[in-house]
Amino acid sequence: MSQFNRNSRGVYLIAVTPFKENGALDLESTDSMVDFYLDCGVTGLTILGIMGEATKLTAEESKTFVARVLKRVNDRVPVVVGASAPGFAPMKELTTSVMDMGAAGVMVAPPSTLRTDDQITAYFDMVNETLGPDVPWCLQDHPVSTGVQMSTAVILKILKNSPNCVMLKHEDSPGLNKLSGIIASIAKKEIERVSILTGNGGGLFLTEEMIRGADGAMTGFAYPEMMVSVCELFAKGDIEKACDVYDAYLPLAKYEQQANIGLAVRKHILAERGVIASAAVRKPGPKLSPADIKDIERLTIRQTKRLKEIE
Amino acid sequence: MSQFNRNSRGVYLIAVTPFKENGALDLESTDSMVDFYLDCGVTGLTILGIMGEATKLTAEESKTFVARVLKRVNDRVPVVVGASAPGFAPMKELTTSVMDMGAAGVMVAPPSTLRTDDQITAYFDMVNETLGPDVPWCLQDHPVSTGVQMSTAVILKILKNSPNCVMLKHEDSPGLNKLSGIIASIAKKEIERVSILTGNGGGLFLTEEMIRGADGAMTGFAYPEMMVSVCELFAKGDIEKACDVYDAYLPLAKYEQQANIGLAVRKHILAERGVIASAAVRKPGPKLSPADIKDIERLTIRQTKRLKEIE
Amino acid sequence: MSQFNRNSRGVYLIAVTPFKENGALDLESTDSMVDFYLDCGVTGLTILGIMGEATKLTAEESKTFVARVLKRVNDRVPVVVGASAPGFAPMKELTTSVMDMGAAGVMVAPPSTLRTDDQITAYFDMVNETLGPDVPWCLQDHPVSTGVQMSTAVILKILKNSPNCVMLKHEDSPGLNKLSGIIASIAKKEIERVSILTGNGGGLFLTEEMIRGADGAMTGFAYPEMMVSVCELFAKGDIEKACDVYDAYLPLAKYEQQANIGLAVRKHILAERGVIASAAVRKPGPKLSPADIKDIERLTIRQTKRLKEIE
Amino acid sequence: MSQFNRNSRGVYLIAVTPFKENGALDLESTDSMVDFYLDCGVTGLTILGIMGEATKLTAEESKTFVARVLKRVNDRVPVVVGASAPGFAPMKELTTSVMDMGAAGVMVAPPSTLRTDDQITAYFDMVNETLGPDVPWCLQDHPVSTGVQMSTAVILKILKNSPNCVMLKHEDSPGLNKLSGIIASIAKKEIERVSILTGNGGGLFLTEEMIRGADGAMTGFAYPEMMVSVCELFAKGDIEKACDVYDAYLPLAKYEQQANIGLAVRKHILAERGVIASAAVRKPGPKLSPADIKDIERLTIRQTKRLKEIE
Repeated sequence: MSQFNRNSRGVYLIAVTPFKENGALDLESTDSMVDFYLDCGVTGLTILGIMGEATKLTAEESKTFVARVLKRVNDRVPVVVGASAPGFAPMKELTTSVMDMGAAGVMVAPPSTLRTDDQITAYFDMVNETLGPDVPWCLQDHPVSTGVQMSTAVILKILKNSPNCVMLKHEDSPGLNKLSGIIASIAKKEIERVSILTGNGGGLFLTEEMIRGADGAMTGFAYPEMMVSVCELFAKGDIEKACDVYDAYLPLAKYEQQANIGLAVRKHILAERGVIASAAVRKPGPKLSPADIKDIERLTIRQTKRLKEIE
Repeated sequence: MSQFNRNSRGVYLIAVTPFKENGALDLESTDSMVDFYLDCGVTGLTILGIMGEATKLTAEESKTFVARVLKRVNDRVPVVVGASAPGFAPMKELTTSVMDMGAAGVMVAPPSTLRTDDQITAYFDMVNETLGPDVPWCLQDHPVSTGVQMSTAVILKILKNSPNCVMLKHEDSPGLNKLSGIIASIAKKEIERVSILTGNGGGLFLTEEMIRGADGAMTGFAYPEMMVSVCELFAKGDIEKACDVYDAYLPLAKYEQQANIGLAVRKHILAERGVIASAAVRKPGPKLSPADIKDIERLTIRQTKRLKEIE
Repeated sequence: MSQFNRNSRGVYLIAVTPFKENGALDLESTDSMVDFYLDCGVTGLTILGIMGEATKLTAEESKTFVARVLKRVNDRVPVVVGASAPGFAPMKELTTSVMDMGAAGVMVAPPSTLRTDDQITAYFDMVNETLGPDVPWCLQDHPVSTGVQMSTAVILKILKNSPNCVMLKHEDSPGLNKLSGIIASIAKKEIERVSILTGNGGGLFLTEEMIRGADGAMTGFAYPEMMVSVCELFAKGDIEKACDVYDAYLPLAKYEQQANIGLAVRKHILAERGVIASAAVRKPGPKLSPADIKDIERLTIRQTKRLKEIE
Repeated sequence: MSQFNRNSRGVYLIAVTPFKENGALDLESTDSMVDFYLDCGVTGLTILGIMGEATKLTAEESKTFVARVLKRVNDRVPVVVGASAPGFAPMKELTTSVMDMGAAGVMVAPPSTLRTDDQITAYFDMVNETLGPDVPWCLQDHPVSTGVQMSTAVILKILKNSPNCVMLKHEDSPGLNKLSGIIASIAKKEIERVSILTGNGGGLFLTEEMIRGADGAMTGFAYPEMMVSVCELFAKGDIEKACDVYDAYLPLAKYEQQANIGLAVRKHILAERGVIASAAVRKPGPKLSPADIKDIERLTIRQTKRLKEIE
């Protein structure tokens, strides 16, 4: 199986958490979703992130869901679990629990209270202490959701200080030059190589980021085959073709990236594709209007047509 | 015992969560702290609030702590438990669990994502649905920590829509005119009476708020006897004496209200007073410098002297 | 000439403010830019907005620039001037001054301090009082830059209270259902018709917004011919062709919409197209890296190719 | 006359801007206000700050007000003018204009968009470039209003890079340890001495800050004689007496520090004291309720009584 480590590449799919219409966890859909993602060719899964509605689950539900995903994945790809928490005791508890179940590692974003460079690096020193020497982890840089702006220098310092941080999820926007800066530091051996996956706007800058040297994507667009295909074409060096594929999906990807309703769009498409049984989002959460659904239909028809043209 | 209901008055003390020097929950200090607060004459306790480091506890620790407090209180005063949560499933779970253990009710603040009036009232409709018909609750209006500004009209609407919301914790600043507006609505019978306790800046506007008609305080200043005394003097109509007492404590109360280090100041004083064994705050959290401790010493000496003068 | 009124349609181009390499106002480029925008077929111009670096100009420079634009436009299209200001005295002064020079009206966004519905509607009552009965104005709803979230109900109330607010610049995201709601209110005659132009992400949702019933766009993408063409095709009812044109420009439009560096991208393209002499942005402002410029080149080549394909 | 330089001490009073009931600038009250402040013994004046409603004045009004203040002061104390601006062209223009009129220097706070350490220090490098070699200036560190958190390290770096930054207005809260850190750096000659005046909460931590080694206060409490007296007593080494004086004013000072309505409280007191003709605050601005005014009366009576007791 592919490993979650400094050399990871490809697509770590940000999974949704499927619910039934009545709001209960949908474990059957969890299975079918895992199968779908793996059939698409993803190289890893990330669960219990923001788009996984992690904060809307009880501690018990979280564990049930993680266990079900891990069982179904059955070691075919590494599974990373979101472990961001306002306190270190809950972070430690969740981490220990999911690692025991077989997770490959965890992902941590900074809490929204951090501002200065010193505050941020001090926080991640405590993360290192909390996670300990045996848990590989991914640093999530997502200012839009956290409000925390980490400069290139701060990220390099965190990476230097963190022997077990093996991956950076790059989601700053605009972040292309930050991405280039970090990759340049790795090239100059100023820091040890880490895997850099990008998640900017659900993949809205994927081709630009791959050109800058990213190792792949960690995002949850409802057409994972697009990200897989783009990554493979980049691996082959066929950038123009990669851009053709990407551009065909861009109008729908853009639609899925709308703040707030994005998750409802994603789940709607996944339900339409038969991946999950229901598009239900737990409260408080967005709901699509009939006009939204018509938009998605129209965009999907155009997408299918355009994909045929470029085949 | 006094009840947690629409007629509650006096001081609902916001309890700290005592830790040992090594960061573990300190259950012995939990007992001594409960005893101390009750000896001070508080009419209720509020636990697992922001100043109770609730987010730094594991789910297990939270339950252990709540159980210990409830056992020690032994029905002498009502205990309210903070139940704010980003999702309703965890809110429901925690609420059910603490009500089963004997809590008198819960307290809920809005999540920081809410902005418009409609979003806020819709959120509390969901809170009502989540908590159900059997759980009395307190609405916490604390814009400084939540970022959510609820107008007088919005608060009145929430109170109207919420048959089990029996208490408002008023912590908006400036909020004196909002407080007056809500009390006027109750007087005009536009809404049913609710208990209004104030927590502005750890009690920094307590006398002004009592003059406007507040029913008491819900805050955690390390000298609860001040709040108890002020409330009693107001009940007797001796406002000048109440202000004398209050002013004597004001310099230290102000010092305890500093953003960030406030909790460390509070725990330091409680430890100095022998209420809890250690002033330890869990990471990430503030630490006092030697100069801070000197400040507290100096302010305490002056406070003692001033209290003697006004006796 | 087309009028700035409740029936305005088409493209109100958000103009940049051209500077020389040394940072001085470039009045010659101001002329060529006006010519370019008008040759593209825009139906109006908006100047001194956020993307016009208004806050970086002295009062004197603002007036010089407005005068130059108005002279060059020479009444061919209406010119709207950004007049948002933290105080009403400066708002009144700028408005009086630009209306005297021949502007068609002004645009006002709420200051970032507003939160509750009441605060927002009270603010716009003061705007009405400040602008007086003779100045048509456009309400700008742009939460990403202002931090102010105005619900559909609040916008409808502002529109009702504001006899001279003839246009709404819709820039909320996600905002499609808000847009639909306001248009439905107009259809039901709940409020008088206003012109609704959209500016979401520099036009990133233009086709979706036109489908919902928007009257056109108010944005500044460096290829105004795209917006003009999309609006014309919608007017003709050729939605599929409109989407083809739009999708061809989407990858570059998306690139231009990156937070912070977006304005530098826009000015770079305009300079490359010969519209303005220099891409200079005043400090504090973004600068493109060589890799950014390569991205733009690559995207431009692909855009040209794709446009040929769909001709 | 006292100079605005690295050795400045005492009280730089933050002046209000007096308006007539109809909202016009009140130049007669400007004169009487200047006389009052100077009679109180202040060592400097700061005008056009946040509490001076600077953003509500037109450029013309700002100049008229500055000229009037400077004429009345007539070189008896240095006058510092707030020059924070979103762009450098307006900052330069205002600075040149007020220095030509006889101002002693300007004060600059960072714009609210800055987040990382690098962004902040880069910004102040541009401030240095803008102000040039002939304008002494004061760095304002006020996170509550700017949202910008500058660590001790960042402030030290700005001070090092800025040969003409002669004063720090310390308004971070909690900031006592930051204050101690900067003063320690000066003591260790790591940076050149700068004058450090404090403005925390309108002087709410003045005695604590003086104990830590601050050089005085820059704030606008409506009883400047308190700050002058506290500074003089500290100069004499009579700390206990300084604290007695300070504590006597604390209840009213606290009341004046309420967010939003604070300025209305301050102007009300100044009008009651006969310093300015009207308490008018320009829109958008707070208004006192009758209950607020009663609070102020009550607190003033208690303050007078307490002051007599400690005489």
